Amino acid sequence: MKKIENRSTPFAATPKPPYYAVIFTSVRAEGDRGYVQMASRMVELARKQEGFLGVESAREEIGITVSYWRDRESIERWKVDAEHRIAQKYGKEKWYAAYRIRIAKVEEEKRFESK
Amino acid sequence: MKKIENRSTPFAATPKPPYYAVIFTSVRAEGDRGYVQMASRMVELARKQEGFLGVESAREEIGITVSYWRDRESIERWKVDAEHRIAQKYGKEKWYAAYRIRIAKVEEEKRFESK
Repeated sequence: MKKIENRSTPFAATPKPPYYAVIFTSVRAEGDRGYVQMASRMVELARKQEGFLGVESAREEIGITVSYWRDRESIERWKVDAEHRIAQKYGKEKWYAAYRIRIAKVEEEKRFESK
Repeated sequence: MKKIENRSTPFAATPKPPYYAVIFTSVRAEGDRGYVQMASRMVELARKQEGFLGVESAREEIGITVSYWRDRESIERWKVDAEHRIAQKYGKEKWYAAYRIRIAKVEEEKRFESK
């Protein structure tokens, strides 16, 4: 039985695997320096990309953003998007102290919803 | 050049891919009800598992915990660990309103460290 997801859930409404996840973990540099505005703009832009499936994000000591994609080609296209490339450049210059990007193929997904 | 990671980094010190990621995203139910203690105990236990590579975690509206594993067999062993099974049961009964578990094979990893 398929559950219809809506905007009230914070989970990405991903399809049946396989699909791809980009696990982006980061530690911020000090100061905002346009970061919050850029982060919001990047999510807005990513949503318009072909093959984008959804995104989940949280930050404490470390920030974790997992974006989901139909295939590696979609990830590659997003990686070379012109506006995204500028954000990547600024990311290294002023927004992040360090980060990791892991590209992973999702093989299995399980869901739980309390009654 | 290989960078030696130490306890001061919040990033999991994962090896060269391929390896596996378990992406656990959750929304908490109300009240602690032993949750914080359990969560800390589960990380402690996971660290002792054969094939465990590291973990990264953050929570805001949504909680995201990504644990890294050598292979799917290590994930399967951890899944059926006796104490972990009890935590899984309580997780459904009282700790989580909803969650997703995605098992993914990491194919590529990139690192950035500011100077």
